[in-house]
Amino acid sequence: MMVITSPKEMNAWSQTAKLQKKRIGFVPTMGCLHRGHLSLIEVARSQGKCDTVVMSVFVNPLQFAPNEDFDKYPRQWELDKKLAEDAGVDVIFHPSSEDMYPANAKTFVEVADLSSVMCGLTRPTHFRGVTTVVAKLLNIVSPQVTVFGQKDAQQCFIIRRMVQDLMMETKIIMAPIIRENDGLAMSSRNRYLSSDERTQAVCLSQSLERAEKMINAGEKRSAVILKAMHEYIQQNPLAKVDYITVVNTETLQETAEVFNKSLIALAVYFGKTRLIDNIIL
Amino acid sequence: MMVITSPKEMNAWSQTAKLQKKRIGFVPTMGCLHRGHLSLIEVARSQGKCDTVVMSVFVNPLQFAPNEDFDKYPRQWELDKKLAEDAGVDVIFHPSSEDMYPANAKTFVEVADLSSVMCGLTRPTHFRGVTTVVAKLLNIVSPQVTVFGQKDAQQCFIIRRMVQDLMMETKIIMAPIIRENDGLAMSSRNRYLSSDERTQAVCLSQSLERAEKMINAGEKRSAVILKAMHEYIQQNPLAKVDYITVVNTETLQETAEVFNKSLIALAVYFGKTRLIDNIIL
Repeated sequence: MMVITSPKEMNAWSQTAKLQKKRIGFVPTMGCLHRGHLSLIEVARSQGKCDTVVMSVFVNPLQFAPNEDFDKYPRQWELDKKLAEDAGVDVIFHPSSEDMYPANAKTFVEVADLSSVMCGLTRPTHFRGVTTVVAKLLNIVSPQVTVFGQKDAQQCFIIRRMVQDLMMETKIIMAPIIRENDGLAMSSRNRYLSSDERTQAVCLSQSLERAEKMINAGEKRSAVILKAMHEYIQQNPLAKVDYITVVNTETLQETAEVFNKSLIALAVYFGKTRLIDNIIL
Repeated sequence: MMVITSPKEMNAWSQTAKLQKKRIGFVPTMGCLHRGHLSLIEVARSQGKCDTVVMSVFVNPLQFAPNEDFDKYPRQWELDKKLAEDAGVDVIFHPSSEDMYPANAKTFVEVADLSSVMCGLTRPTHFRGVTTVVAKLLNIVSPQVTVFGQKDAQQCFIIRRMVQDLMMETKIIMAPIIRENDGLAMSSRNRYLSSDERTQAVCLSQSLERAEKMINAGEKRSAVILKAMHEYIQQNPLAKVDYITVVNTETLQETAEVFNKSLIALAVYFGKTRLIDNIIL
């Protein structure tokens, strides 16, 4: 596995690979890899039909607000390198903040409307940071296929919109959520949880399962489903709901009824730790 | 000369040309071609060392404010085709607004700070429209070299900043201003001028010449130079100054003294017609 830190070298590597007719799959991460991230590599190879996989490891300062956890966001570069290599990554791209954001950088990419709802309500500049860094990474790595996890569903839909709007060339694949045995969606932030919080955090996925059961039994009204989810989660004294919502995946606007391809998404605080989860019908 | 209207076909053409190791030069325009535009084609071939030149003709609605001249902006598609072909353009890309901005498009590219000064003061959403459409065009055409005219100097510097920040692959060349015999910078908007306005409009380039003479004679103070330019232009009763400024080309911030590479730029109204001109020292 190659390690590349310079954007120029990364781009040169990709240009050469493309001249050799290689199909490049790209897995952008903030490191601190878990099985969720590693599953994306396999998706790039199988579903994305890629010959070669580039993974980026970059904790993007632009997507953290000043009051958020940028400084204490977990970093484990040496372990990440080993995990990526074992999982079959061909190139790991690990740029510095100075290379990604030179002092005179002024350009932002923003997806209107989709970025200001759901997680955008509590994190108003978050998705602008995500779309800006992903635009840069896509131009550097120039992949035919890029894989994101459904865990960050809003992020996936926003990036897919950006790629389509800006007529960028990559195909965006959204890969399934990988869960712990008890159902908790894997996340680098799970390690922030105390033992009690960790036990109660299973209520996120369980509330989504409950919603799915109601829908399978014929319930269509979003208000009824959301009320049941709220009540279920509120049985856990350490959980504080940020939002639970039913939206259209194209517009991310709330809908009064669920339908095929509705996204049911939620964000719940445990202390300062904010966890998210979702299902797509 | 080929005419392509579909973004997908345009991109496919470029990908094929690149596999044939062709070096693509790109000249984005809003049509209504004059000698200023046509000179950019030659710059792409000579300075840009391009084998093949793509010109886009697209009047971009996103860079016009509701009170501006989008509807009456001059269009002459049949004549433009002939002029482009005679000037040696290989492909003319002429997309529809619907293809460039599908109804669900939500993505904007913005260069902060540089877009809110100078022309950005009277046209606050203009450069966001420019950078968004140019980002799309660059992704569609995928050129090695892109040529803009210095006439729109602020636009050039903003786009250069965007390309560098987003790590896009094209090289931006800024080509010299082409002028009428009396010095008026060529512009599609010159045709809006009445005969009296056209006569007086020569004061723009003459005020810049005057500034250059003062600087060559040793004057460095921006305030002194700008005062002389104001006074010179105000001798023309139909001219109404929007701005005259001395800025650093990197930051577009005003400087108290001129220096090597200062940009002296101005915008002046004649009736509803707004003309711009500049020199770079």
